Amino acid sequence: MTAGLSFDIIDVRAGVEEENEKYAGEVRAFCREHGIYLVNLMASPGAGKTTVLCRLIDALREDPPAGFPGAVGVIEADVDADVDARTVAERGAKTVQLHTGGSCHMDAAMTLRGLKALCGENEGAGSPRIVFLENVGNLVCPAEFDVGADLKLMILSVPEGDDKPLKYPLMFTVSECLLVNKTDTAEVFDFDLDRCVRNVRALNEEMPVFPLSGRTGEGFEPFVSWLRDRIAESRAER
Amino acid sequence: MTAGLSFDIIDVRAGVEEENEKYAGEVRAFCREHGIYLVNLMASPGAGKTTVLCRLIDALREDPPAGFPGAVGVIEADVDADVDARTVAERGAKTVQLHTGGSCHMDAAMTLRGLKALCGENEGAGSPRIVFLENVGNLVCPAEFDVGADLKLMILSVPEGDDKPLKYPLMFTVSECLLVNKTDTAEVFDFDLDRCVRNVRALNEEMPVFPLSGRTGEGFEPFVSWLRDRIAESRAER
Repeated sequence: MTAGLSFDIIDVRAGVEEENEKYAGEVRAFCREHGIYLVNLMASPGAGKTTVLCRLIDALREDPPAGFPGAVGVIEADVDADVDARTVAERGAKTVQLHTGGSCHMDAAMTLRGLKALCGENEGAGSPRIVFLENVGNLVCPAEFDVGADLKLMILSVPEGDDKPLKYPLMFTVSECLLVNKTDTAEVFDFDLDRCVRNVRALNEEMPVFPLSGRTGEGFEPFVSWLRDRIAESRAER
Repeated sequence: MTAGLSFDIIDVRAGVEEENEKYAGEVRAFCREHGIYLVNLMASPGAGKTTVLCRLIDALREDPPAGFPGAVGVIEADVDADVDARTVAERGAKTVQLHTGGSCHMDAAMTLRGLKALCGENEGAGSPRIVFLENVGNLVCPAEFDVGADLKLMILSVPEGDDKPLKYPLMFTVSECLLVNKTDTAEVFDFDLDRCVRNVRALNEEMPVFPLSGRTGEGFEPFVSWLRDRIAESRAER
């Protein structure tokens, strides 16, 4: 605590999350059986998840990872509405919209249901083998729920600030790749990428960090290339 | 659904929230007894809650509402860390930091605990009579929990986008005042204030909307003036 400042710190509730693991195992088994690579995409509201997703749908269709057809599927999770599902469906992704009702995150059971709706019946060549779960916009609870994905991908956007790893540490700890989005707006925000990365490194030494702009596409290629390799490797391992 | 787009919509979980009401009643009784006006401040991560709060601390100290001393108290709720508590304590607010552990929102029981820590023992003139609860950064669950506040105040920031009322309808429905923050960054974002207000009005016909910039202070005075009147009126009603 800074000298001269005086305030109490009280722990009001310990975090406990339930027996989600059984369903996460079922998700993994389903993905293995159907040859699906599943990405859990997490971020705050308005961080640019859908815009990034649209670029990924294009990039993976044009140049698919080795061993994967280019069809991309999207599970859109929202408390309500279907604006993002429309956007990604218009972009050509096979899409399912999940409404989570009052829930601020996806758990593994919901994910399994979405996966089965998206890939279950259709065993043909058009069935998506790369599936993105666009989680509810939230930096807290989604981090607590292992949905059984192959990759936990998170976005932090420049307008949110470089201090977010300090306030939402679990999200930055469990994620396996960080996109720092909206770099095209950097001149109007006091966002220090080096400070952000230092804050991230205190929690997560290995996670790759890709600064990029979903809007302009700047910085996108290194990330897509990394993701393509990672998906292709997962195929080789199976 | 737009013609030609085909996707299923599945309700995966009904929202249920518990017997928070008993504690909300205790919060109201505590506030009545101690002459406290309590504001529940809600927003996404990085929407500018703390910056707005700092300006409010200054404005209410310099020109307090009729019948209220100018001392402002802040209950900072975070999953972890105390960066915001330091900031508002440096600004001169009496502050308590609550750590919510794994919880992504404040409930009324936690709020009562924070209030008692902030205002309980100290019955002197310096005890804060205007208290802001800076809720966890989240547009979902905080909306579901009535913490017993006199005013539900929410912030939406320009970088988040004008479609947020569509995706997080409950927050925009239950809130009683909306600040559209970071208007100084409007030129780099495709944010249409009229469209935003239309989206809000579909959910909430009466809520006042104040566009402003926490950073530059632009647009702040009409909001502070509205808040000052509202606080003074609450005093008159008691």
